[in-house]
Amino acid sequence: MTIRLYELCSADEKTVFSPHCWKVRMALAHKGLAFESVPVPFTKVASVEDGEGRRVPVLRDGDRLIEDSHNIALYLEEKYPHAPSLFDGEGGKALTRFVIDWSQTQVHPVINRLVLMQIHNSLAPEDKHYFRRSREKRFNMTLEEFSASRGASATELHNALEPLESMLSSQPFIGGSSPLFADYVVFGAIQWCRVFKGQSLMKKDSQAASWFERVAALHGGAGNKLQFAA
Amino acid sequence: MTIRLYELCSADEKTVFSPHCWKVRMALAHKGLAFESVPVPFTKVASVEDGEGRRVPVLRDGDRLIEDSHNIALYLEEKYPHAPSLFDGEGGKALTRFVIDWSQTQVHPVINRLVLMQIHNSLAPEDKHYFRRSREKRFNMTLEEFSASRGASATELHNALEPLESMLSSQPFIGGSSPLFADYVVFGAIQWCRVFKGQSLMKKDSQAASWFERVAALHGGAGNKLQFAA
Repeated sequence: MTIRLYELCSADEKTVFSPHCWKVRMALAHKGLAFESVPVPFTKVASVEDGEGRRVPVLRDGDRLIEDSHNIALYLEEKYPHAPSLFDGEGGKALTRFVIDWSQTQVHPVINRLVLMQIHNSLAPEDKHYFRRSREKRFNMTLEEFSASRGASATELHNALEPLESMLSSQPFIGGSSPLFADYVVFGAIQWCRVFKGQSLMKKDSQAASWFERVAALHGGAGNKLQFAA
Repeated sequence: MTIRLYELCSADEKTVFSPHCWKVRMALAHKGLAFESVPVPFTKVASVEDGEGRRVPVLRDGDRLIEDSHNIALYLEEKYPHAPSLFDGEGGKALTRFVIDWSQTQVHPVINRLVLMQIHNSLAPEDKHYFRRSREKRFNMTLEEFSASRGASATELHNALEPLESMLSSQPFIGGSSPLFADYVVFGAIQWCRVFKGQSLMKKDSQAASWFERVAALHGGAGNKLQFAA
């Protein structure tokens, strides 16, 4: 039975943009696993697979249903041990958690501010409404006010990526000589930016820019099979 | 033959403060290896073991001489494979590089600014002179000007440690359920601060504060065997 990946989409279903879904896309490609993408708009996420309060990505593999990109990666590693490893041992598994939290606390907030209005504008009317209401409640101001007061610049993104840039002087991937899930964690964040900006916004001629291109080209160019937001 | 660890010291030789030397102290304790500490002031570092332009930490183990804390950890892992692992596999080894670069680019600059004048004040006269000259050349201003204009606060340290704080909601050590070299990398930076400030400056009741105490207490309290700077 084909693996199904439920992924967040814009009004145009071909535009899948969630960083967490992209982490899983890359993990599946790394494991050499084919999958069927099921695009889901914001207002349909909670009820995926007859659920309540679900969050994407959701992966259906036979009788197993897994939520959360990290849980999915751990599941794939356990279920498909003979395919290339996503962690390369227990230490790698543990330290991936640090990379996730670094990306989530340092990189995501910058990209979120960079693409916020564009996410909104790419959605279907009912999803626009949901997105606006949920975010405005969180920010305690309108999307427009938030964007005007807290908008981010590409320079902030470059600054946030300083540890990656520094590390790339020592090795070509976070995973060392070849990529691991930790690479896809950071790749997913930047891909989110790329879908909305039409480009990665990485610093020209930086090591991080080369790394991003290297990761996108892996597994038959899995990271380049994207549709930019309209 | 006893392992010898050459470590940076203040005018009082018992005060060893280099973050990189502390990383190695903890790695040796983790491996259960006894060592003789050889305290070295700034002006004697370059010529350690009849060398030229050396940098501490320097480890002497029989006929092997190794520089750089990360190289030393990799050496110990290879030379003493039956002692507890510092990396727990190749993935852990690779991802440690990311933690090192994160610590070096995000945590070290803050602590450096926090303790700069105190490092200077703790040194013997000839080392004070060397330290001032080399740093003032790098900063292109006096130590006092640099400290006044670029001094850091404990809050900046707490902000820099946000990825660690976030990660500690998922697991007790960067290494997962037990510590790895990656934990000592970050511990070493904060120990550097603690030697000069008399306390870690970690945020009260934070997960990071508990983690620091947990790491310091490991291996018979190896991280608590320190002498604060006068």
